Amino acid sequence: MTAKVIGVGTSLFGKQPDKTSAELAWTAILEALNDAGDEPDVRRLIDAVFVGNVFGEPGVAVRALQGVGLLGLPVVTIESACASGTAAFHEAVAAIELGRYRTVLVLGLEHMTSIIRGPIVPQQSDAEGRSGLAMPAIYALAASRWLEEGRVTREQLAAVSVKNHAHAMGNPRAQYRGHYTIEQVLASTMIADPITLLQSSPVSDGAAALVLSADERPDRPSVRVRASVQSSGRAWDQASDAVWGYELVKRTASAAYAAAGIGPGDVNVIEVHDAFTIGELATTEALGMVPEGLAGAYAAAGRTALGGDHVVINPSGGLLSRGHPLGATGVAQVAEIVWQLRGEAGARQVDGPARLGLVETMGGGVAGVDGNACVVTVLEAPATGRLT
Amino acid sequence: MTAKVIGVGTSLFGKQPDKTSAELAWTAILEALNDAGDEPDVRRLIDAVFVGNVFGEPGVAVRALQGVGLLGLPVVTIESACASGTAAFHEAVAAIELGRYRTVLVLGLEHMTSIIRGPIVPQQSDAEGRSGLAMPAIYALAASRWLEEGRVTREQLAAVSVKNHAHAMGNPRAQYRGHYTIEQVLASTMIADPITLLQSSPVSDGAAALVLSADERPDRPSVRVRASVQSSGRAWDQASDAVWGYELVKRTASAAYAAAGIGPGDVNVIEVHDAFTIGELATTEALGMVPEGLAGAYAAAGRTALGGDHVVINPSGGLLSRGHPLGATGVAQVAEIVWQLRGEAGARQVDGPARLGLVETMGGGVAGVDGNACVVTVLEAPATGRLT
Repeated sequence: MTAKVIGVGTSLFGKQPDKTSAELAWTAILEALNDAGDEPDVRRLIDAVFVGNVFGEPGVAVRALQGVGLLGLPVVTIESACASGTAAFHEAVAAIELGRYRTVLVLGLEHMTSIIRGPIVPQQSDAEGRSGLAMPAIYALAASRWLEEGRVTREQLAAVSVKNHAHAMGNPRAQYRGHYTIEQVLASTMIADPITLLQSSPVSDGAAALVLSADERPDRPSVRVRASVQSSGRAWDQASDAVWGYELVKRTASAAYAAAGIGPGDVNVIEVHDAFTIGELATTEALGMVPEGLAGAYAAAGRTALGGDHVVINPSGGLLSRGHPLGATGVAQVAEIVWQLRGEAGARQVDGPARLGLVETMGGGVAGVDGNACVVTVLEAPATGRLT
Repeated sequence: MTAKVIGVGTSLFGKQPDKTSAELAWTAILEALNDAGDEPDVRRLIDAVFVGNVFGEPGVAVRALQGVGLLGLPVVTIESACASGTAAFHEAVAAIELGRYRTVLVLGLEHMTSIIRGPIVPQQSDAEGRSGLAMPAIYALAASRWLEEGRVTREQLAAVSVKNHAHAMGNPRAQYRGHYTIEQVLASTMIADPITLLQSSPVSDGAAALVLSADERPDRPSVRVRASVQSSGRAWDQASDAVWGYELVKRTASAAYAAAGIGPGDVNVIEVHDAFTIGELATTEALGMVPEGLAGAYAAAGRTALGGDHVVINPSGGLLSRGHPLGATGVAQVAEIVWQLRGEAGARQVDGPARLGLVETMGGGVAGVDGNACVVTVLEAPATGRLT
């Protein structure tokens, strides 16, 4: 049974210390339930809830669900580092496909401002943690390697930030937006050379929700989940053939393309894990979305921007601009692709027809493996959707 | 497809600040893999890993799996407060039953001594948290109510501690054990009246692992999972008809009995969530294992102890004596029932034949609901097992 996304919703993303994660979740859940149909009717259909969250207290999911009266259901709360939201989505998709549940709610939530003020630092028990290598530094090592190899330039890295902040101009839910120049991005505070502040995803609070169902909405065609694959990392160190995360994304994407029966060239719009600018470029190449060694050049030439001549990457603004509340991120990525495939993305709508979209989320933070976990999901526009 | 438990293993339970949670996990995983057959062969069969953990850092599961070379698999890490271990087990069982995976590893782990020193305190955003009601106090309110209603005596509460610490005399993996008297239990440090120190589960570090499969071990009949049900709480306050958690356990157990096609009278041995003595008594009644109002009297008369004339409750020593490393607890409960049903529980083996065992785990900590989550699982002895 194919899983359909019949409703999506998100809170605003940003620093919201005056709101609890539960309050942010209520906004996202109610929007998703209303989007899925008549809200009280949809609410009664929910068989189970799958939740993505990293830093919340024990029981964070039930605390959020209690406020909207969704009690007494099986609730599965999943931690998979930065990929927690899509990890929850992935389990929910499997539950629908296998006939375990008919309709489920997927919720991603994270209240980062009550947990940390700066970068996420790996465990002191890891070599990276002991060396003081926070996550920006781990990505910076990848960027340095590509610079050294001549595979990217500092300006091309900055171009990703320029593109995504410009995309977010059309996203009223984004944390940051703006028309920056390459020079401004390069001149912003240095975080971990060559990664500057404007090349780093911010500390964010936010929530996102989806209603997944085995059934279409009767009054409207639904976006279908054509394939979803989750993998964890394999052994890796700085001397490995590819930069951190590259092979994990490549393996996961390869399995997802096979399951969906498509190739990267069939995809019209993608949301990928641009926690830092180098992340988007490495991921884009690992996904096979641009030829190897050309991701930076494509970004700098505007080919992967809205209005460009290639697949559109991160029309929402991505993690760099929409923000990165860990557990919410993957669910928000899926929501963005659903809006794009429905033709409801407003000022940031990709040129149609958009038939296939893809989401990639990467979780990191473990020394010695090429990523904690990666989820790649392929979504398909309604057969009779507005744009097709 | 019925899920079979083909291998089990645990670390020692106790305060182990000199070990990491990953190190504890390695002990449990390797014992479980070896118990399931030839270890390298079993390792190759693992399709996915389901992990229960509450307080670990992002990526805690992959960090543990890396050390035993179990990389590149789908890993699902689940937080469900104190029921996290059985919540992970429950998802793994569903994955086998639905044909999603053929063989999976279930891992529970928690390193409490690196997180807290005293009781778990609910969020400050909850009424309980604002009132300073830590978990012992929440259970103490239930105990006080039963005392007030004449449903239990202080001595009967203490009898649960006496029984479980005596059971743990036969459990070399337990954190605490001893032959205590009722008077000693009542005279131990008061934690939250009427709950004393010896009536409270300790701060513990530990890990437990299981191999679940659609296939029997060729050389040995396996314990089968006859049913597993997970539910979350419904609206509750101190004025509700039953004490905290009671109705949630009752609802979940009722569904589990129906799914298993059995009644509570068919069960020979159980492991239940005795985070505090009142927890075991309330749970035992909610499970229908003893007549309402008689759980305390049964415990005091030794009827639910090893060698008693009724179902044996917590032969491992329970959370009170084995310890309570949150994410590991539920997996260790299942391991204990597997050992009991195989007739391998040594000095704490229940009198045979033990055909059916049951595990109940309760997660708490959310104000306004009668429990964060509850899992009830029914396990069945091998048809041609030693005891049958």
